[in-house]
Amino acid sequence: MDDKIVLEDDLGNLRRSHYSFEISRKNVNEEVVVVGWISSKRDHGNVLFLQLRDQFGEVQIVVKKKETSLQLFKTLRNLKEHSSLAITGVVVEQKNSSSQIEILPKEIKILSISNKPPPFLTQAISSIGIDTRLDLRAIDLRRNYLQFVFKIRNTIINSIREYFNENYFIEVNTPKMIATATEGGAALFPIFYYDREAFLAQSPQLYKEQLTMAFESVFEIAPIFRAEPSRTNRHLSEAISIDAEKAYVDYRDMMEHLEKLIRHIVNRINSKNANELENLGIKLPNVSGSFPRITYTELINNLQANHKFIRWGDDISPKILKDIFSDEFFFITDWPASMKPFYVKSITPGNAQKESAIDEKNLLSESFDLMFGGLELSSGSTRINNKDLLIENMKKKGLNSTAFDYHLRVFDYAMPPHAGFGLGLERLVMALLKLENIRDATFYPRDIDRLTP
Amino acid sequence: MDDKIVLEDDLGNLRRSHYSFEISRKNVNEEVVVVGWISSKRDHGNVLFLQLRDQFGEVQIVVKKKETSLQLFKTLRNLKEHSSLAITGVVVEQKNSSSQIEILPKEIKILSISNKPPPFLTQAISSIGIDTRLDLRAIDLRRNYLQFVFKIRNTIINSIREYFNENYFIEVNTPKMIATATEGGAALFPIFYYDREAFLAQSPQLYKEQLTMAFESVFEIAPIFRAEPSRTNRHLSEAISIDAEKAYVDYRDMMEHLEKLIRHIVNRINSKNANELENLGIKLPNVSGSFPRITYTELINNLQANHKFIRWGDDISPKILKDIFSDEFFFITDWPASMKPFYVKSITPGNAQKESAIDEKNLLSESFDLMFGGLELSSGSTRINNKDLLIENMKKKGLNSTAFDYHLRVFDYAMPPHAGFGLGLERLVMALLKLENIRDATFYPRDIDRLTP
Repeated sequence: MDDKIVLEDDLGNLRRSHYSFEISRKNVNEEVVVVGWISSKRDHGNVLFLQLRDQFGEVQIVVKKKETSLQLFKTLRNLKEHSSLAITGVVVEQKNSSSQIEILPKEIKILSISNKPPPFLTQAISSIGIDTRLDLRAIDLRRNYLQFVFKIRNTIINSIREYFNENYFIEVNTPKMIATATEGGAALFPIFYYDREAFLAQSPQLYKEQLTMAFESVFEIAPIFRAEPSRTNRHLSEAISIDAEKAYVDYRDMMEHLEKLIRHIVNRINSKNANELENLGIKLPNVSGSFPRITYTELINNLQANHKFIRWGDDISPKILKDIFSDEFFFITDWPASMKPFYVKSITPGNAQKESAIDEKNLLSESFDLMFGGLELSSGSTRINNKDLLIENMKKKGLNSTAFDYHLRVFDYAMPPHAGFGLGLERLVMALLKLENIRDATFYPRDIDRLTP
Repeated sequence: MDDKIVLEDDLGNLRRSHYSFEISRKNVNEEVVVVGWISSKRDHGNVLFLQLRDQFGEVQIVVKKKETSLQLFKTLRNLKEHSSLAITGVVVEQKNSSSQIEILPKEIKILSISNKPPPFLTQAISSIGIDTRLDLRAIDLRRNYLQFVFKIRNTIINSIREYFNENYFIEVNTPKMIATATEGGAALFPIFYYDREAFLAQSPQLYKEQLTMAFESVFEIAPIFRAEPSRTNRHLSEAISIDAEKAYVDYRDMMEHLEKLIRHIVNRINSKNANELENLGIKLPNVSGSFPRITYTELINNLQANHKFIRWGDDISPKILKDIFSDEFFFITDWPASMKPFYVKSITPGNAQKESAIDEKNLLSESFDLMFGGLELSSGSTRINNKDLLIENMKKKGLNSTAFDYHLRVFDYAMPPHAGFGLGLERLVMALLKLENIRDATFYPRDIDRLTP
């Protein structure tokens, strides 16, 4: 081995020749350049074993004292994990390694040096409080556990786009700085918009509805913002929402789409991420059959047998739902209109799934929530497409319809019937991968206590 | 033809059997259900011709007076364009139509009625001021011209993801609510974040840099927010930024990636949107050769021949650039370090493209801008990965480094060398499709004057 050792951070013309997954026994005796960071180090006195990790995996580097300059050997011995290296070396066979090869270095360039060990190990599943991890999130995300989670998240994102593209939905982007609240005034973040007050969008609701006029079937994957004052393991102040909206269909069609979408996602993860699932020790829920569907009224009637204080019109606690449904996907449909936002259509008698509307107070809506155990993943509905009805509903919910003039005016040009849903990406990741905390389903979580990093 | 006419907005069980593109001469004599909105209407006295548009195209509906009830015929005659219909009818041959078929209705259901004609025609390219159009944006987006533009935009978005996925970049989402400004304090939108002040992110810069530690190659397609006080045809307050960042490479590699990305996009549009390009009367720029590259210093030297007041260190006006380069892609590289943000790496002598750094005042940077004529589409650079150097540069630019502590602390764990770029989606659409105004490259534009719809 040569004596060359360079301790600078400039790459010059040095580039990787192979990713870790591109080197196998067929490369034995070849010279390669591998680049990455040290995920672990074993010191056997006269031999150092370094695991060099790139974005796909690891290769083992074997540094032998007698074949290395003393200076370089000492430098490498003292080098902390997480430091970045570029290694030019020869591939040799190593039967005990899973890749069946290792690298004998000829030249090592140290690209970046770690000054101290992080307060957690790359191999640890959760050895430490989440706030300590989040304060060093970029390093935390190097942990094997989160690497598996985020590889699966990437499959989820790609399979969602795949589904929508195959089903003729067009991807749109709607504005995140808006003039009025969609769902009422609570939980909004106010902005200074030049000389005016504005808000961050809680949902793309009204925009995606409008866009069905021009594009018929639309979807968006984008951040939403909720000034959620509670400290829970299932709420984020900034989350990624998967929104779909389609003209000329109703909520039953969109339940079908949502069910097929979830099935597509689960199938894709099973086929692409078998290795990650195995490492996480997770088996995804079986989604081959139809998701159970129960109306809100049926559910309340059933619950009243054991919970005599529950009344029609009440919210149902996650705990009660989890006790009944445990870890499965199911729909709760036909919610009381009074429990849903102003843009949700009430059930027209004859169009009801299992019962029909009775009177104003007991009016049902063409709506559904997709649940996973006690966790609400998605809400959807048929939307009102009649301007007068929409204004009437705004008034019922205590909203000032003149503030929505910019939205209502397009209804004069024939808003088609339409329906849609919003699905929380982080909640879906949390449900599928059994995460303890929703914060681990996103890169840099935001909540009432955390604005950095 | 039956006498059935229903004037309500409830779909019941009525659903489309065929999209317009699914009906051809092979369907002659079949009964179909087509659904959409009336894009134009011709009244020949005893015959009405309706063009029914769905998200893929149009079918012609022929309503004959003698085969229709008088009531229905009168209703249809008075029905305004943009109204939505569901038509059950029989496919008949029509040699003069491009689809070679038309539909004879048996039953017509009016799903939504337009109350008045919009102030522009669906067929018009730009008959009216942009503000009138934007006030009714959902209807404006029904115009053929914008339909072509947004179909191509969809191809662009999909081909960008295709490129990044094929090149092993992982899609990430970084927070849009942040504690400190990346590029200095100007042009930021302040937010009330619970009880604190925060800002909307102008770019995912620091986050995407950090994420190279965990994922090596990352990209993000997401909104950015700039409180841009000027009124121009090329600035938006909210835009979609395409951001890429990669460890173990420098700015030259990222220029290669950006050039290949643009080439991939142009090739995809040419193969997928030939029809839209023809209708727009546009030929995309030829991108088969390498994009010209000129250093900032060379460019200034060349310009000084005709513009004696231009000095090294000056910005170059879009007009001057457009005169020299007209409608082509080119790179301006190796900008003065003083003209670039604090995180941009200065050129190490020997690593320069065509000249090396001289002294502090004349220091060059490993940076590039991708231009199209006079329009800046993208900026990229090698980033500083050394903590002390970064703090020093923050001070030089007048930034308080303690405000960036949440970012700087990860540098203690060996930030790898890395480089990246940000590309403005709307500017790319504007350049490729020769749009007069960047507002037509986005669904709902935001600027100093406009916060709705």
